[in-house]
Amino acid sequence: MSGDSLGEMFRVTSFGESHGRGVGVVVEGCPAGLEISVEMIQKELDRRRAVQNLYSTQRMEEDRVEIVSGVFNGFTTGAPVCMIVWNREFDSKSYDSIRFTPRPGHADYTAYMKYGGFNDYRGGGRFSGRITVGFVMAGALAKRILSILNIEVIAYTVEIAGIRAKIKDIFEAKENMRKSIVGCPDLEASKKMIEAISSAKEDGDSVGGVIECVALNVPVGLGEPVFKTLEGELARAFYAIPGVKGVEFGAGFDVAKMRGSENNDQYILKGGKVLTKTNNCGGILGGISNGMPIVCRVAVKPPSSISREQDTVDLARMEEVKLKVVGRHDACIVPRALPVVESMMAIVLVDNAMKTGIVPRVLKT
Amino acid sequence: MSGDSLGEMFRVTSFGESHGRGVGVVVEGCPAGLEISVEMIQKELDRRRAVQNLYSTQRMEEDRVEIVSGVFNGFTTGAPVCMIVWNREFDSKSYDSIRFTPRPGHADYTAYMKYGGFNDYRGGGRFSGRITVGFVMAGALAKRILSILNIEVIAYTVEIAGIRAKIKDIFEAKENMRKSIVGCPDLEASKKMIEAISSAKEDGDSVGGVIECVALNVPVGLGEPVFKTLEGELARAFYAIPGVKGVEFGAGFDVAKMRGSENNDQYILKGGKVLTKTNNCGGILGGISNGMPIVCRVAVKPPSSISREQDTVDLARMEEVKLKVVGRHDACIVPRALPVVESMMAIVLVDNAMKTGIVPRVLKT
Amino acid sequence: MSGDSLGEMFRVTSFGESHGRGVGVVVEGCPAGLEISVEMIQKELDRRRAVQNLYSTQRMEEDRVEIVSGVFNGFTTGAPVCMIVWNREFDSKSYDSIRFTPRPGHADYTAYMKYGGFNDYRGGGRFSGRITVGFVMAGALAKRILSILNIEVIAYTVEIAGIRAKIKDIFEAKENMRKSIVGCPDLEASKKMIEAISSAKEDGDSVGGVIECVALNVPVGLGEPVFKTLEGELARAFYAIPGVKGVEFGAGFDVAKMRGSENNDQYILKGGKVLTKTNNCGGILGGISNGMPIVCRVAVKPPSSISREQDTVDLARMEEVKLKVVGRHDACIVPRALPVVESMMAIVLVDNAMKTGIVPRVLKT
Amino acid sequence: MSGDSLGEMFRVTSFGESHGRGVGVVVEGCPAGLEISVEMIQKELDRRRAVQNLYSTQRMEEDRVEIVSGVFNGFTTGAPVCMIVWNREFDSKSYDSIRFTPRPGHADYTAYMKYGGFNDYRGGGRFSGRITVGFVMAGALAKRILSILNIEVIAYTVEIAGIRAKIKDIFEAKENMRKSIVGCPDLEASKKMIEAISSAKEDGDSVGGVIECVALNVPVGLGEPVFKTLEGELARAFYAIPGVKGVEFGAGFDVAKMRGSENNDQYILKGGKVLTKTNNCGGILGGISNGMPIVCRVAVKPPSSISREQDTVDLARMEEVKLKVVGRHDACIVPRALPVVESMMAIVLVDNAMKTGIVPRVLKT
Repeated sequence: MSGDSLGEMFRVTSFGESHGRGVGVVVEGCPAGLEISVEMIQKELDRRRAVQNLYSTQRMEEDRVEIVSGVFNGFTTGAPVCMIVWNREFDSKSYDSIRFTPRPGHADYTAYMKYGGFNDYRGGGRFSGRITVGFVMAGALAKRILSILNIEVIAYTVEIAGIRAKIKDIFEAKENMRKSIVGCPDLEASKKMIEAISSAKEDGDSVGGVIECVALNVPVGLGEPVFKTLEGELARAFYAIPGVKGVEFGAGFDVAKMRGSENNDQYILKGGKVLTKTNNCGGILGGISNGMPIVCRVAVKPPSSISREQDTVDLARMEEVKLKVVGRHDACIVPRALPVVESMMAIVLVDNAMKTGIVPRVLKT
Repeated sequence: MSGDSLGEMFRVTSFGESHGRGVGVVVEGCPAGLEISVEMIQKELDRRRAVQNLYSTQRMEEDRVEIVSGVFNGFTTGAPVCMIVWNREFDSKSYDSIRFTPRPGHADYTAYMKYGGFNDYRGGGRFSGRITVGFVMAGALAKRILSILNIEVIAYTVEIAGIRAKIKDIFEAKENMRKSIVGCPDLEASKKMIEAISSAKEDGDSVGGVIECVALNVPVGLGEPVFKTLEGELARAFYAIPGVKGVEFGAGFDVAKMRGSENNDQYILKGGKVLTKTNNCGGILGGISNGMPIVCRVAVKPPSSISREQDTVDLARMEEVKLKVVGRHDACIVPRALPVVESMMAIVLVDNAMKTGIVPRVLKT
Repeated sequence: MSGDSLGEMFRVTSFGESHGRGVGVVVEGCPAGLEISVEMIQKELDRRRAVQNLYSTQRMEEDRVEIVSGVFNGFTTGAPVCMIVWNREFDSKSYDSIRFTPRPGHADYTAYMKYGGFNDYRGGGRFSGRITVGFVMAGALAKRILSILNIEVIAYTVEIAGIRAKIKDIFEAKENMRKSIVGCPDLEASKKMIEAISSAKEDGDSVGGVIECVALNVPVGLGEPVFKTLEGELARAFYAIPGVKGVEFGAGFDVAKMRGSENNDQYILKGGKVLTKTNNCGGILGGISNGMPIVCRVAVKPPSSISREQDTVDLARMEEVKLKVVGRHDACIVPRALPVVESMMAIVLVDNAMKTGIVPRVLKT
Repeated sequence: MSGDSLGEMFRVTSFGESHGRGVGVVVEGCPAGLEISVEMIQKELDRRRAVQNLYSTQRMEEDRVEIVSGVFNGFTTGAPVCMIVWNREFDSKSYDSIRFTPRPGHADYTAYMKYGGFNDYRGGGRFSGRITVGFVMAGALAKRILSILNIEVIAYTVEIAGIRAKIKDIFEAKENMRKSIVGCPDLEASKKMIEAISSAKEDGDSVGGVIECVALNVPVGLGEPVFKTLEGELARAFYAIPGVKGVEFGAGFDVAKMRGSENNDQYILKGGKVLTKTNNCGGILGGISNGMPIVCRVAVKPPSSISREQDTVDLARMEEVKLKVVGRHDACIVPRALPVVESMMAIVLVDNAMKTGIVPRVLKT
């Protein structure tokens, strides 16, 4: 009922706030016998950190994971895994100014209204991008399970500030994205994207973009029609990432321009396997994986924190006021969102793999 | 776990197949005291039927609803409401040919693999658009509850075959869409869309499109962050409609081209109410409704059933074969999907309204 | 949220009322490839019918099952299975008298209050024992799955009207219970129970009893601690049967009289298998099955419908009145509840077996 | 799916182990604006601690709660509340001996089998009574919400070692139980119970008992038939407490000895309110509260840790061995279980109260 949990067999419960004691996650249903180390989780957390000077926030916490439960002698026990990253000391006084004057684009207003002003407004509180720290920790576990199933999840940048990357194929994308600090495999486009971000930053403004996420080696049969289609479950997970406003699969919105004869993915046999010539369905038919790569795209809006003066309303006095958000913030969150998007996909795929019975409750490694 | 149910407080369980005994739905959690008539549900079902000669299928069942439980003396009782539309006699022999030769674009292949060949393949069985009959019956109940809350849901066509409508405002859209047999408020575009559908039909082909769905008078506060955001729940519901490949909210994928200063919806006061100047967020911030109209768009692919010869694989013999789908089918399902899209939004909004406690368990009418 | 569904992977949704169109059930998550026939389900339904002249109601409906969906060519398809028993014609006018004057012991009062008087009060409506028809149909599917796993569920009468049966062992119990029309394996006690029922019936009164339910060949490992223990899930399922007021496992309430040294079930090896010398835990430790028979007892109250005058309140006029329930009713429901108790246990065991991954999504028969 | 969560609107997720870093709980769905202090929670935790010298374990941790999230400026925010009690240093080497030799009565064997030996076996790990620390912390929040609704929950001892207390009425019970270190309102019986515990302790043995739990001022209408009856939900919650083997409501198992005319609770009017003369149904009819006190009893087995030699099996070598559990343990857990039983009832009542809409999402205090 409450919305803090994702998944049914691999169930992720998020807790924590931007400026509270910390952010954390409880993972229920993780199979026993999964080898887990702090380093492995830390590595994913580090990928989520900002690249300083380019699009960074001032605040550069170290984000050290503490495993509280569910792991014993280096392996999961089958009991819930609780992981916490403690927030470090910081000055949250600057946020008093926003208590009653919601920042445009942020959840300040809706949180204030829904929770009657009791919400922790400091730094966006529960609605801050910081809570994705928890998603990434859970995602690290999920990715580890996927690796046993030989499934790989990769997210890369395909658009920032209207600049679109050209992606040749997923294998090149995987290779090249590491060379780009914005995670874009088209290195020409990457340069322009970096310029666009810098330019926005100088203007005290921000830019949005699109992330493509691909899963390789997904077996046929994941997804539970009709209301828990793979598309639906993935979309729901992606929309938990602050700033996501669109999710599409395969040809996505371009299907509106296509004819059936173009859009239908015709079947062929290759090496004894049933494949499709094209992949306009993004690897999902009838809500179920068809064995082709799962391909989706996630639209991420420009960060709402900009240094320009904006119009807002003082909710205590009910009068129109001007607001200028202070502090430095990310001019673009697309690159930092890449491991988060991967994590969401990994969590959903593990949950669905468990439902189909292909993940044993005890892993033999 | 299984995917046949949607919603938590207003819970919709779908059952039935295209060529079985019938299609139906059980609605749990419907408040007691809701006035319900067969006519009211029938009216919605009728909207779902095809416009003959334009984009119609051959099969034009009458789709008469039978209320099996949960309604007594014309009012809901608080008990689960079961509604069934019985399938009428038809010839399903023609489907034997597709048992082992999956039609490209359909779920034939994934259903065959997931259910080990035990799936009812006739007419797509459980994956047929016909099961949306159940969604519409549940949606009729949901809309009735929304009407008590003064919330209105309207879906209209904004793109077919690459032809985009220009929408001035929602009130004109609501008015004009009734004048268009494809449900497009831009009557100029509507004409071109009809031509494009006819043309595709003549070619034995099909076309896709985009539906925009708007909810008016939604109170502030619906949506349960972080994993059950309003966007996420709506997207999941829309992806249950066969053929949907993309869902976006407000500015949607266009956020990738916008700067924060453009995209942020600044607050104003109007008649003592907090509004935003723009609505790029589509009425949802932090996953919670902000009181502005909820605006989303749903991409619908061209129907997979086309009369052209296509490549497929015989799964019994594991060899490549040619397939020609016989029978007449819809050349475009966008117009018929309009009441289905509305139904999904209505169901999700009622479920979320119930979670916030604004729908009493017993309605006083 | 709403309470009409039981189970997560094998999910049973109940609908229907005593005097409405019919009673039914939707089973989601049933594996594909399960051979199903109307006869098989009918056989279980017939066991639920009353033995006339002994403890019967007047109404002896034939209760013919109709399979609406999810079965194709005699096998489950993996899609939800909807089954309905249609109610036949009957006179429900006699129930007008109870609309505002709740019968003591029945749910009339709580239903009236919870659903604001909109509840279908005829024959108890949704709260009638008749809805267990749906449980038994779902149970028939569950038992069929258990039979593949070689698990057997047997319920028999161990107490009626204070007369306690002596049970030697489960194998004799299984044999002898068939010889008793009250399903009691102790044939001496059975006679006395029958007399006690007859005597109560003559007095226009009713008697209660206790049912013992045993599951054999349950593998080690079913049950999901800490909140979904096997005991907890079974108890929840049993409490759905109208009239159940107590559920205990193994030694049950007698543990209050035992010392740890008596109550602890010590381990032995027998034929290479780990067994326990005693079974005071009823086959469940830490909420998880331990491989010994699962043993539980369910207390069933005397039917509330008696022909004696009772005190009640007229809720419309808010004044105390006398009530005499007309019509003939069961003087004891224990025998008819046996297949219902078995069904609940079967449903819970299948759900838990699916969670542990020992039931494939597609059954090969 | 996984079993670590209880409740739907007020959702409690448990984590932690006996000898790990700590034990904790995440409470989702707690209304915003609830005044919370560490002291308030601490008070409940302190009630759970053992009375030394009587039935105590050696280990007397201080159990200080740390609130990690969801509380801001002393009030809940509407976000998930995470609370942890850190385990202090202790010697867990003594538990190496039980790794492969399961202690009779404990969950050692089933945990070993279900989790493939990866379970944290130290002190019972996840199956230790210590995890009820988390239940009590969540219960403290639930009780606070109930107090706003004027609902009170009280648990007291009614039987230990076969000695039954005589309870005159709930008000005396509430008063007198405070005077008894075993929480038994019948002070005569209390003395005998204490003697029985001491005697068992001297013998290196343990004793069981029965707890009665009562809820006062529960409004009519809580409970969601048919599968989420109030009895079923309460029973499920109680069975999460290690050692519970029976749960009954009102007359409970005694219904088997009663006639309908005795057992039916007849209605009367008193001060304009509908009451029943007796309360054999324990305040629940048709799974729904009827406004009378909710009364249930919970059977708690004698602690499995006894210092006598017992038979077990070495699972590594698969041979029969003798086991003597070392360390001091509780000779009776009934008194310590009282606040835990209260907590479970409080959690279930709040969850159900929220479902009926009588708990606002924002509390005005």
